[in-house]
Amino acid sequence: MADKSFFNLSEPMSLQKLASIGSCELRADSGERIISGVASLEQAGEGDISFLSNVKYASALATSKAGACILSEKHADKAPAGMALLISDNPYAAYAKIATAFHPDSSVIPGISPAAYIDKSAIIGDACEISANVTIEEGAVIGNGTYIAPNSYIGRGVKIGNNCRILHGVTLTHCIIGNNVLLHPGVRIGQDGFGFATIQGVHIKVPQLGRVIIENHVEIGANSCIDRGAGPDTIIGAGTKIDNLVQIGHNVQTGKGCIIVAQTGVAGSTKLGDYVVLGGQVGVAGHLNIGSLVNIAAQSGVMNDVPAKTILGGSPAVPVKQWHRQTIALKKLTEKKGGANE
Amino acid sequence: MADKSFFNLSEPMSLQKLASIGSCELRADSGERIISGVASLEQAGEGDISFLSNVKYASALATSKAGACILSEKHADKAPAGMALLISDNPYAAYAKIATAFHPDSSVIPGISPAAYIDKSAIIGDACEISANVTIEEGAVIGNGTYIAPNSYIGRGVKIGNNCRILHGVTLTHCIIGNNVLLHPGVRIGQDGFGFATIQGVHIKVPQLGRVIIENHVEIGANSCIDRGAGPDTIIGAGTKIDNLVQIGHNVQTGKGCIIVAQTGVAGSTKLGDYVVLGGQVGVAGHLNIGSLVNIAAQSGVMNDVPAKTILGGSPAVPVKQWHRQTIALKKLTEKKGGANE
Amino acid sequence: MADKSFFNLSEPMSLQKLASIGSCELRADSGERIISGVASLEQAGEGDISFLSNVKYASALATSKAGACILSEKHADKAPAGMALLISDNPYAAYAKIATAFHPDSSVIPGISPAAYIDKSAIIGDACEISANVTIEEGAVIGNGTYIAPNSYIGRGVKIGNNCRILHGVTLTHCIIGNNVLLHPGVRIGQDGFGFATIQGVHIKVPQLGRVIIENHVEIGANSCIDRGAGPDTIIGAGTKIDNLVQIGHNVQTGKGCIIVAQTGVAGSTKLGDYVVLGGQVGVAGHLNIGSLVNIAAQSGVMNDVPAKTILGGSPAVPVKQWHRQTIALKKLTEKKGGANE
Repeated sequence: MADKSFFNLSEPMSLQKLASIGSCELRADSGERIISGVASLEQAGEGDISFLSNVKYASALATSKAGACILSEKHADKAPAGMALLISDNPYAAYAKIATAFHPDSSVIPGISPAAYIDKSAIIGDACEISANVTIEEGAVIGNGTYIAPNSYIGRGVKIGNNCRILHGVTLTHCIIGNNVLLHPGVRIGQDGFGFATIQGVHIKVPQLGRVIIENHVEIGANSCIDRGAGPDTIIGAGTKIDNLVQIGHNVQTGKGCIIVAQTGVAGSTKLGDYVVLGGQVGVAGHLNIGSLVNIAAQSGVMNDVPAKTILGGSPAVPVKQWHRQTIALKKLTEKKGGANE
Repeated sequence: MADKSFFNLSEPMSLQKLASIGSCELRADSGERIISGVASLEQAGEGDISFLSNVKYASALATSKAGACILSEKHADKAPAGMALLISDNPYAAYAKIATAFHPDSSVIPGISPAAYIDKSAIIGDACEISANVTIEEGAVIGNGTYIAPNSYIGRGVKIGNNCRILHGVTLTHCIIGNNVLLHPGVRIGQDGFGFATIQGVHIKVPQLGRVIIENHVEIGANSCIDRGAGPDTIIGAGTKIDNLVQIGHNVQTGKGCIIVAQTGVAGSTKLGDYVVLGGQVGVAGHLNIGSLVNIAAQSGVMNDVPAKTILGGSPAVPVKQWHRQTIALKKLTEKKGGANE
Repeated sequence: MADKSFFNLSEPMSLQKLASIGSCELRADSGERIISGVASLEQAGEGDISFLSNVKYASALATSKAGACILSEKHADKAPAGMALLISDNPYAAYAKIATAFHPDSSVIPGISPAAYIDKSAIIGDACEISANVTIEEGAVIGNGTYIAPNSYIGRGVKIGNNCRILHGVTLTHCIIGNNVLLHPGVRIGQDGFGFATIQGVHIKVPQLGRVIIENHVEIGANSCIDRGAGPDTIIGAGTKIDNLVQIGHNVQTGKGCIIVAQTGVAGSTKLGDYVVLGGQVGVAGHLNIGSLVNIAAQSGVMNDVPAKTILGGSPAVPVKQWHRQTIALKKLTEKKGGANE
């Protein structure tokens, strides 16, 4: 059960209501049973609802004491007698919705701290919460219902949409942020791209005259950095989710719904299509086109364009089956050599 | 000699006292000699104490002008005449203790800045120093003798133990911090883990309902990020030391005394045993068990469980000798090919 | 054209003046034509100046509507009739100078925010801008014309030169910063190096008694970390440019004019010569000597000393041609194996 020091907890809800929230089919129960929270299969009790989405955990289902469980049709017959079932095609998504209903984010408490520094030309929307030690510069515009945590910085001319959550210590300059965007602590958006012209060993800064555009429903993880464009804009497409400590270079564009895992870097001017997945610690070189639905394994190094729907691995990255073959071939090679040389 | 603009310097001490601080055996001196500071073998003068812990630097010993040197028995006969010797089984550790005695950290200066924003329900222990522009939210609890530097953020319900040092611009939410913990600038602890359920390309946030537990004597480097658990807690075991720019995913657990070098990432739900060492830029995949005393070379990629006491290298990681053989085999392969093809 | 919400724009200038700023030879025009801004070849109109520095974009030249273009002698004959030409040996550098003339950085607005916390022993130079929620500790010294953005922290005894720009949320301790240094948001300089002596599994901190020296004209990217020396200083040589999320360990020294791309890490005590280029996500092990003008490909792992002027790639890093041969040999190996085994 989530620690109440940190998480809000809604009132108990009937199974009928939860089935509706999760778009599930209710089975083995009238729907009047009252559930007070979510918990794992191991920890749940009679008053809790749990979920099964990964077949690896199916054995926990049979012995679980959960009052109810969200699961797919194919696992329904493994549930113990007396457990109410919420049948779903996507139990994980249904769980996400039900867990959010039990533990809603803290509401925005509208108000502007007297210890925020806001230029008089800035425009603050309705029902925003602007915290202490925030600085908002000349000409910035903040939409309605947006929360800005302490010590964040909103630079000159920056525009932020509605219902955004800008967490602690974020830096925003030269950028336009959509609606429902979540920026975790320490995110840096809009600083100079890394561009220099070199004359006899002296690196002269090339002015970076583009912006960063963050579309709606984007989430960016703690301490990640997104540089502004050199001339064109850097663009993060709607619904893209970026993890912690990620680097996005100048002029990069991502499509819709991409997933970029922690510590990955995308070099300047590369374009990602829609629904691209980059695993952790991936590096993508500059000026490349990565097609939609491409999937890159963790720690890979991508040095060439990638056609849509391709799965790559390794550094330099190759098709994932090829990468596995290379790994095996290399091992076999040393087995032989080992026999001969040692 | 350490720059006094930055470092405190204690009064000079007798060799006898220093031998006692470092648990060393004093040799070639009565112990009454007065030493005023620490310095390298090259830079030390008559009033300084130096140390030799790496045999690579043994040649510097013979010509050093240091008044005294901390070293192991086996190097004692290489010291020049007239140099006082502090014999130790672990000269580096003895040096650490003696150098700390000469250059203690700045004391906490108890007091709460009038420019700190502290919710009235928060509890601040005795003799804490809370700096300007710190925000401490509802229900947070700070132990005794803890220092919080400017611009840090202590979220709702966060608990911090005694004698911690939370440096500049740190973000703490959804976490419980033990005693004697040192968090370097820009550390982010407790933000959402990276968990989404996807329905037709739309990534829905899965509520992250766990916490982060940081045990006693942990140190975490600048700009490192530790996400809170999805349901279970993320746990950093006692005495673990984490370097800069490290990423720790949700539900990760480390044992006691682990060492995690800069820019390494550990993906969600992986468990490290005790005294695990991860070199720089290592990636460890999710849901793995890494045994105690495992040692992973820098830049390795760990994709499978690792038994205790194993040393691995490479990406994908293999036993370190195998990795070296692979490197050599690959070179030889191209030598032959080079001969034939070019 | 750069978005005026974010960028200053100077008055229009004559081609003659622009040729002088960029040290170009003016051709196909009297020099009296008035230009109002810079733009890409595709987007530029009659009143704009563009540039061609990469032969890949030569085809855009012929159809461009730009009033003027900066280019090298060898491309001059491909320009459309009526376009004024600014001939340069280094068109990219000439563009950088001209674009800077059109879009100068915002001036420092001298003044000290009443919401900055400045120890009375600190010395602030002439014409500095010190923003809200900045803390400047005991004995710090700030040169003339330096800008410090909100929420930055200048520790005890830190010295900063003239005309520096310290952006939002930067942490500076135990360091001496030269003139004309640019530090992007979230940079951390001067924290403890990662040094421990271990006694029976307990990691004792080894006091880090050196400093960080940042020489003139250095730029450091967002959220990058530079640890102070253990005894010697960590030194970043004049004119070196460091990208985002880079880790520089204790005692590292770089020469002049190095380029260190994003997410690279350099381990303790390694020395780089002058004009070394490290690509993105490179790892360099500790205690190495990397010669001047060395170039390391992205994602490489350097484990040995590197002679001057060498180009390396791969992990472990080898000469770049050897690396390409290895990549090809490995692919061929699996083709054969594939034929036999599958």
